[in-house]
Amino acid sequence: MEIIFKIIINTLKTIVVHTNLSVYTAPVMQSLLETEQRNPLSYRIDSKSTLEILAIINEEDKKVPFAVERAMPSIAVVVDDVVEAFKKGGRLFYIGAGTSGRLGVLDASECPPTYGVDPEMVQGIIAGGQKALTTSVEWAEDNGEAGVERLKQVAFTSNDVLIGITASGGAPFVVEAMRYALSVGAKVGAISCNKTTAVFDLLDEHHRIFVPVGPEIITGSTRMKAGTAQKLVLNMITTTAMIRIGKVFNNLMVDLRPVNAKLIQRSHRLISEVTGCDEQESKRLFAQAGNNTKLAITMGLLQVTVEEASLLLEQNGQSISRVLNLMESHSGSGS
Amino acid sequence: MEIIFKIIINTLKTIVVHTNLSVYTAPVMQSLLETEQRNPLSYRIDSKSTLEILAIINEEDKKVPFAVERAMPSIAVVVDDVVEAFKKGGRLFYIGAGTSGRLGVLDASECPPTYGVDPEMVQGIIAGGQKALTTSVEWAEDNGEAGVERLKQVAFTSNDVLIGITASGGAPFVVEAMRYALSVGAKVGAISCNKTTAVFDLLDEHHRIFVPVGPEIITGSTRMKAGTAQKLVLNMITTTAMIRIGKVFNNLMVDLRPVNAKLIQRSHRLISEVTGCDEQESKRLFAQAGNNTKLAITMGLLQVTVEEASLLLEQNGQSISRVLNLMESHSGSGS
Repeated sequence: MEIIFKIIINTLKTIVVHTNLSVYTAPVMQSLLETEQRNPLSYRIDSKSTLEILAIINEEDKKVPFAVERAMPSIAVVVDDVVEAFKKGGRLFYIGAGTSGRLGVLDASECPPTYGVDPEMVQGIIAGGQKALTTSVEWAEDNGEAGVERLKQVAFTSNDVLIGITASGGAPFVVEAMRYALSVGAKVGAISCNKTTAVFDLLDEHHRIFVPVGPEIITGSTRMKAGTAQKLVLNMITTTAMIRIGKVFNNLMVDLRPVNAKLIQRSHRLISEVTGCDEQESKRLFAQAGNNTKLAITMGLLQVTVEEASLLLEQNGQSISRVLNLMESHSGSGS
Repeated sequence: MEIIFKIIINTLKTIVVHTNLSVYTAPVMQSLLETEQRNPLSYRIDSKSTLEILAIINEEDKKVPFAVERAMPSIAVVVDDVVEAFKKGGRLFYIGAGTSGRLGVLDASECPPTYGVDPEMVQGIIAGGQKALTTSVEWAEDNGEAGVERLKQVAFTSNDVLIGITASGGAPFVVEAMRYALSVGAKVGAISCNKTTAVFDLLDEHHRIFVPVGPEIITGSTRMKAGTAQKLVLNMITTTAMIRIGKVFNNLMVDLRPVNAKLIQRSHRLISEVTGCDEQESKRLFAQAGNNTKLAITMGLLQVTVEEASLLLEQNGQSISRVLNLMESHSGSGS
């Protein structure tokens, strides 16, 4: 105890000065990256009640989709790149470190069950590899060569698209991979919450998805608003690209892979909804189509056999809409 | 071609009727789960341009944080359970299947680097295990026994907290694990975007985190708004709990683990900001403290040695705020 009091007495003035000048006031940091700046709305958040803290976080979260809205023109450019790549058999790769990398892997992993596409079509690359999905791998994001190496491992070509995901925008793992992807002639985009950043320096302005979410509630904790922005943008990219290549009929995911009880029920419901049949008939169609929802819908809609439905879809790029459009145009000329 | 035209002619009327009655109109589905309902705002989204599609998705995304706001009272109850558990050495477990499970693993994985806590403290359990982080594991969410088994594997006790994450609210993997956790006397919460659901049936209303995001843009695609809501709630739970147990000083993550170049720079900056010292001094303190940011801050703030700072933190629950409060109270009585 004696030591403690000695320290206290020795440092009293220092503490008081520091308390007033720097600890509880906003430092001026014009040159600091937005994502690393201190947010005045969360000053002294450590002294608030649980509900007060939640309210502060929530008020900030409300700003994120509005920040994403400002990035929509560049998101659209990147989506159109992805659609073009998909149409010629190319793939979409996300690359990131830490939370950014995990969100890329998350979004990619959702495409096969949601849209029935091959797992090769959208892939997430994370610094540090599979292990980094659950633990932070030290120095992984600083290894630029590793980023390039990973692209070579997946035989990345000019037909593919690369999207760099990075909250602060400077991770060498991402920057060097993007540089490599550009060098082979591929389309490349990047998502960052800082305007002036290494990943954007590599790109024309149309491919810079800048989402201005501003300083985080916990200084530099980019898993919060920046991470949410990244999730929203990635969901937008894959959802919109899948719609554009005909994986959605009206607003229904007719290509879903029914891999569990909930999804089988959803398939039955989809068939009933689109064709207007009852539950019993939808189950019969689903079984006849070998659990292929889209095939069952086509059978029910056109009242044709499995073989005929299969042929019609094959001749129309696997798109129910195109089959229907063909029908409608004949309907129009015939009536 | 002949076959096709025969089909066309045979089914023309059927198609026209179906087109008008069911495909492009909103079916009435009062009894259907909210997350599985069709969203009238996205009707015919497959016929829109890229920018139009993005705008439709974005308008829906804007609603998510407002839906989370309505759940704040129950989020606060669950956070306080978690804080209480942490204070007596208990752990927080998330459990979910598919996207929900992945978001739990994501949030848990961020706690050690952000707040310097042990990876044991917050853990994510996903149906289908590690493999399910990157691919969808068939039937995994329907296996209730597996959920219970996983809790037994981590020696889940009444000191721990379990949070079930499920968009639709019915995955047996989650439901059965929650039932087990309740049976051992632990605190249990759940996040769902449907009000009437199996996971909520197990809980009192205070522990039901119901986030009413409404129908998705792509019918049943709960990776979108429901997933975003889950991310926001999980971030809120861990961030707020970490603040409440003293892992944040003011709004600074003074316990961060500097595992890469960006985080080392952030540590230097934290030390300068809090103590008011220059860059050179912050680097010196950081090195002296063996790359322990909080220790370096305490040294700089109180102008004490490594050993003295270490002792002060130890005697004040590793909280800089508490050390400062102690100082301030002595300062008050002395002036």
